Amino acid sequence: MNKSQLITPRTLKGFRDYPPEVMIPRERLIDTVRRVYRSYGFSPIDTPALEYLEILAGKGGDETDKQLYKFQDHGRRWVALRFDLTVPLARFAAQHINRLGMPLKRYHIAAVWRGENTQRGRYREFMQCDFDTIGTRSNAADVETVLVIHDLFREIGFSEFTIRINNRMVLAGLLERLELSDRSTAVLRTLDKLAKIGHERVAEEMVSTAGVTDQQAGQILQLAEISGANDDVLRQIEPLVSGSRTGAEGTAKLKELLDAVAAAGVQKKYVALDVSIARGLDYYTGTVFETFLDALPGIGSVCSGGRYDNLAELYTKQELPGVGASLGLDRLLAAMEELGMIEKISTPAPVFIPYFDKDRLHDYLKLAAAVRAAGIGVEVFPEPKRLGVQLKYADRRGFRVALIAGEDEFRNATCRVKDLQSAQQQDVPLETDAESVIAAVNGILG
Amino acid sequence: MNKSQLITPRTLKGFRDYPPEVMIPRERLIDTVRRVYRSYGFSPIDTPALEYLEILAGKGGDETDKQLYKFQDHGRRWVALRFDLTVPLARFAAQHINRLGMPLKRYHIAAVWRGENTQRGRYREFMQCDFDTIGTRSNAADVETVLVIHDLFREIGFSEFTIRINNRMVLAGLLERLELSDRSTAVLRTLDKLAKIGHERVAEEMVSTAGVTDQQAGQILQLAEISGANDDVLRQIEPLVSGSRTGAEGTAKLKELLDAVAAAGVQKKYVALDVSIARGLDYYTGTVFETFLDALPGIGSVCSGGRYDNLAELYTKQELPGVGASLGLDRLLAAMEELGMIEKISTPAPVFIPYFDKDRLHDYLKLAAAVRAAGIGVEVFPEPKRLGVQLKYADRRGFRVALIAGEDEFRNATCRVKDLQSAQQQDVPLETDAESVIAAVNGILG
Repeated sequence: MNKSQLITPRTLKGFRDYPPEVMIPRERLIDTVRRVYRSYGFSPIDTPALEYLEILAGKGGDETDKQLYKFQDHGRRWVALRFDLTVPLARFAAQHINRLGMPLKRYHIAAVWRGENTQRGRYREFMQCDFDTIGTRSNAADVETVLVIHDLFREIGFSEFTIRINNRMVLAGLLERLELSDRSTAVLRTLDKLAKIGHERVAEEMVSTAGVTDQQAGQILQLAEISGANDDVLRQIEPLVSGSRTGAEGTAKLKELLDAVAAAGVQKKYVALDVSIARGLDYYTGTVFETFLDALPGIGSVCSGGRYDNLAELYTKQELPGVGASLGLDRLLAAMEELGMIEKISTPAPVFIPYFDKDRLHDYLKLAAAVRAAGIGVEVFPEPKRLGVQLKYADRRGFRVALIAGEDEFRNATCRVKDLQSAQQQDVPLETDAESVIAAVNGILG
Repeated sequence: MNKSQLITPRTLKGFRDYPPEVMIPRERLIDTVRRVYRSYGFSPIDTPALEYLEILAGKGGDETDKQLYKFQDHGRRWVALRFDLTVPLARFAAQHINRLGMPLKRYHIAAVWRGENTQRGRYREFMQCDFDTIGTRSNAADVETVLVIHDLFREIGFSEFTIRINNRMVLAGLLERLELSDRSTAVLRTLDKLAKIGHERVAEEMVSTAGVTDQQAGQILQLAEISGANDDVLRQIEPLVSGSRTGAEGTAKLKELLDAVAAAGVQKKYVALDVSIARGLDYYTGTVFETFLDALPGIGSVCSGGRYDNLAELYTKQELPGVGASLGLDRLLAAMEELGMIEKISTPAPVFIPYFDKDRLHDYLKLAAAVRAAGIGVEVFPEPKRLGVQLKYADRRGFRVALIAGEDEFRNATCRVKDLQSAQQQDVPLETDAESVIAAVNGILG
């Protein structure tokens, strides 16, 4: 074949391949996430990557609409790739919840697609890991959401992180008192920028875009800027929302949530009331969460969510309240990489058997089968190459142990067990069931 | 909102939702598949769902091209959704193999999309589970492929299945002897229909489409119809390919493979030489595999593959030989359903705690945390409803154990542990660490 006829192997801009060394830690993280979600009774669901365009369009704002991958399918139907897992969940719930029953506790770990501007370092295909409890207004579900986030980060291996919690009803209470309830969306959008653009500019913008007075903007900012220990924060909120039933309910729910989370065994340092947490999205109506890694606050929230009153109002008349959160898998993996939490391996099997003596394939296969039967992954090199070449390969892949045997070893019924990290090696007896070899391997793997 | 304004919640034709009761056994099966692949050192990779159209078009034949979901993206690039995992693997290998090194042993479990005719009961989105060893011509990799397929079906829970094995070189040897090597593709295509249309019609078709004589067709069919124990089959093949080096090599490789697979501990009944296995695809050049469930032969092969000489010739001048197979996840799940191998549960957590006494949320959360810390999944109902309602919910979801405690139980520091399958219950002491409760739960879960 002429070289000029070759098709250049490449991925689309904003898309990427996941080679083994990237995919192995990724799968491990996803396993941990699933295990934690499952330990609270959240069930997996999946939905199609492609949906009718009318299901997805107009659900995430103009920006998201522009980013939709949409086209006409073979039957001339307008279809699009999902851009998040929340809209498909709403459609799914409207369609199935009467059969499935409530509460519906589901998790969904899947790829989504957005034609984003890649100059901002964003990918056009990325993974979301959502969990939600649908069909209850009970604060116990909000409490559980915090517990799940806590367990998630602990299980992943973080000891320094903060789940920042607020309740939309607190600000709603203040706005009620200031008779500004109709400005809520504009106020929230502006407040969301507080960390980025600071007090002065937020105050100005609030006056100019939300049409509040300087004094009102001052009070709103006073609320948003409350800080201190959780009890202090609660005490400072109260006078600002006094007289508003909504404000009182929001404050009470926050207090109840903090108490319950502590009772369930979560250390105080992991949970902080933060009245500045606004979350841009309109549809949150109660508790809202963001999660920050103490070592890398700059990367922003790695797990966010909140409570909503009505998940699926576009698809059903049935009111579906719920609460949930979404883990930013790619952002979290990037953070773990930066914090040195990712092991450099590109094999999921710890043990390597060089195919060293070309006449002994059967013996290598028997040994591998015996070690595998003990629950330990084993790779046998597929070709009888020089031992040095094979050990170099083993090293590059990141195997932990090599089981080396040639004609001499097989004749004497022994096997060399080599720790590939320390380079220490020992000769152990090679029985039919490889008992001694397995013991030696387990000794190295710990 | 006016009902007429509601968007009908529905999925596209040929696409489907996976609710918990479908997704839980699906995830369990995928876990088993991954565990087996990993135990042989196969590493996960992933590639984008969307590729440049030129990468995918023309790679799977006219039929596949027609079924491609293709469109122009925001940058007016022609793109398409992958229709299998082999073409992306070829592109991936051409792009990365020099950095990753060989052998490259990868598995890839991911969705693919084809605009199929749904009248044949086919889905337009389905999952493939492929594993391949790239970069070696060694028969040891073919042996390992059989071992992986064997372990896969054993681990999934099958005790009656047959891996049918052939080698393309055997037929090539006969064709060489008959001086028909140039008719190989047409002969293979026709032979592939043997099980469906029978001896007579295959013979006719071979004469009319492949242009062979009646006598040649007779010899080809004589080869394809050899049956018996593996040793008998080998003995019957030999005279038919005698004088052909290709035929001798194919026969020798089959013999070597059978011997090695037996040495590695695979029982004879699981592996059968079957000279009629042709596999339609042109690109196989050596060993080919199909796997049948003895209880459901009619559903066809549930795991197929083979050896190829050159994976990525369209993308690189580098020759990349390899061998691999693909598990048909959806077909296998349908078979398992039919054979009663799928448990009916829609919760991944075995233990349920009714939120029974509304003032005791903290106690329920503490109990749940203690049981969860012992590695047992627990769901706490989110609302203080009547016990009967909650137990009905627990029953519908398929929980195994309920931990029931109300005011009396908490005052006496006891907890009722109820086996939800047998309805037997016992009161056990409720300590802070819930030691007795955990022991009772483990007793029920076994």
